[in-house]
Amino acid sequence: MRIYFTFEPRPNLREPLVKEFPQVDFIFENGLSNDELQKADVLVTYGEDLTDENIQFAKKLKWIFVASAGIEKMPAQAIIERGFLVSNVRGIHKTPMAESMLAHILAIKRALPWVYDQQKKSEWSKKAKQTELRDSTALILGPGAIGSEVGRLLQAFGVVTIGCNRSGNEAANMNDMVSFDQLIEALPKADIVISVLPKTEETTHLLKEEHFTAMKNDAIFMNFGRGNLVEESVLIHAIQSGEIGYAVLDVFEQEPVAADHPFWTLPNVIVSPHISSHSSRYVERSLEIFKPSLEKWLRGETDLENVMDLSRGY
Amino acid sequence: MRIYFTFEPRPNLREPLVKEFPQVDFIFENGLSNDELQKADVLVTYGEDLTDENIQFAKKLKWIFVASAGIEKMPAQAIIERGFLVSNVRGIHKTPMAESMLAHILAIKRALPWVYDQQKKSEWSKKAKQTELRDSTALILGPGAIGSEVGRLLQAFGVVTIGCNRSGNEAANMNDMVSFDQLIEALPKADIVISVLPKTEETTHLLKEEHFTAMKNDAIFMNFGRGNLVEESVLIHAIQSGEIGYAVLDVFEQEPVAADHPFWTLPNVIVSPHISSHSSRYVERSLEIFKPSLEKWLRGETDLENVMDLSRGY
Repeated sequence: MRIYFTFEPRPNLREPLVKEFPQVDFIFENGLSNDELQKADVLVTYGEDLTDENIQFAKKLKWIFVASAGIEKMPAQAIIERGFLVSNVRGIHKTPMAESMLAHILAIKRALPWVYDQQKKSEWSKKAKQTELRDSTALILGPGAIGSEVGRLLQAFGVVTIGCNRSGNEAANMNDMVSFDQLIEALPKADIVISVLPKTEETTHLLKEEHFTAMKNDAIFMNFGRGNLVEESVLIHAIQSGEIGYAVLDVFEQEPVAADHPFWTLPNVIVSPHISSHSSRYVERSLEIFKPSLEKWLRGETDLENVMDLSRGY
Repeated sequence: MRIYFTFEPRPNLREPLVKEFPQVDFIFENGLSNDELQKADVLVTYGEDLTDENIQFAKKLKWIFVASAGIEKMPAQAIIERGFLVSNVRGIHKTPMAESMLAHILAIKRALPWVYDQQKKSEWSKKAKQTELRDSTALILGPGAIGSEVGRLLQAFGVVTIGCNRSGNEAANMNDMVSFDQLIEALPKADIVISVLPKTEETTHLLKEEHFTAMKNDAIFMNFGRGNLVEESVLIHAIQSGEIGYAVLDVFEQEPVAADHPFWTLPNVIVSPHISSHSSRYVERSLEIFKPSLEKWLRGETDLENVMDLSRGY
């Protein structure tokens, strides 16, 4: 059994893997070569290096493990034709993203930007405007894997969670659910409005001026889904007119955000440069998902975690 | 029944109280007058205005509700002699303090200080050094009401908690316990070391150079208890020599910290000016504790929440 990684995990991650599976020949290379692909039974890739042209060399290949959540750059049709099993690391982003969201929420509630600014001035002052997260209400647009993880953490802080999806059907770690159609009635209850919605036709400009008008004047609005959710001009107006208290943005209509964009300097807007899913533990987490699947694979089982249906794109 | 507040809660807190207890005459004044004290059955105070001289005017007084956790400034002897029942808002700080600690921990793990600095430069960059809180280990010195609340929240983030107190006896929300004597053996396991210890002879300079040497080089050390825990020179050395990764300090040997103190400018030191317990919801939370006690009091019951033993000082 020959497993070909087209990236090189750090020695402290690579060595235990090699030790744990002595029956496997592991090849670790930085980049994809047809020569190695030809000999590989299993391919482990970030999913950005495999092309239609490569696929013909994959004579022995049966399983592709993609250490990424997206497969946009994979040659889907060629993979389907060859019948490769493809699995990925779906859900790997939920921990770093949920931690980032809680970090931003708590930082605002407990005045950390102010604390840091005072320190830069070497100025001892107790005039911080601090409040508490406890007993707040959060509305979560898109309570899937990531949204439910945020909900779970918020509930630990004594926050009431309202999930909002197309159907209004139940989702994990939500005290209440509403459908997209009921959104505008639910918004006035929320102290925090979080979107982790993906980009679809339905989510494009889903939030309009009326939605921001419906929010509390001190609401924290967070977009950690996709930038298509709201027109930037609508968001800028909502902040400037005081319809909402804070906007924390990890995603934007145009990325990168231009240096002269008003978001950088508007008070009470936080620009997080689409990094909320990043983590130094990414490869470690990927291998935590890979190992149990490899154990199954070696036993001849094919019901691996996160098997993808490339014809449907997920 | 006449209840005398020596502070004035905001109307949105005061009015529901008055409405809820129509049988009570509430007096709200900003400060203490002997004239009003003379007529009061119950006194509600922050505990900093009552003196030995006042007490003699308190002819009808039976219960003092102190909307504060400390009673250092109260005339204990005179109160004991008169046999007043005294209760306070013990535990009121645990929510804001635990939220502040989580805010600081998550901000460091998710690189918020870096994000804020990049924004000040209008600079889009994804080079943040971010890691995850999940699967860390935290050692909590003093797992009482506040320490256990921090432990509860950390556990929700998938953190292993080790409590450390004098006896090593069990405490809430701790996966493991060690005694002060075993501290140095436990320190190498901890990614986060938090103290919420009070100031006593035993806690003065409890942490010495050897303890910081025993910590991980990337450990986050947080002092949210009292400044007597460690000599500042020891802490400065630990940071400068890289024995620890971060120090987040809410308390200091000398407060306020002088403008020319190295803490302000040392890299990886955060100065929080002893504000972690502050909250705009303080009075609201105090009244949440006061109301059930008042209900009991009106029924003639005296087993109120947080009754204090002034002879023992708590």
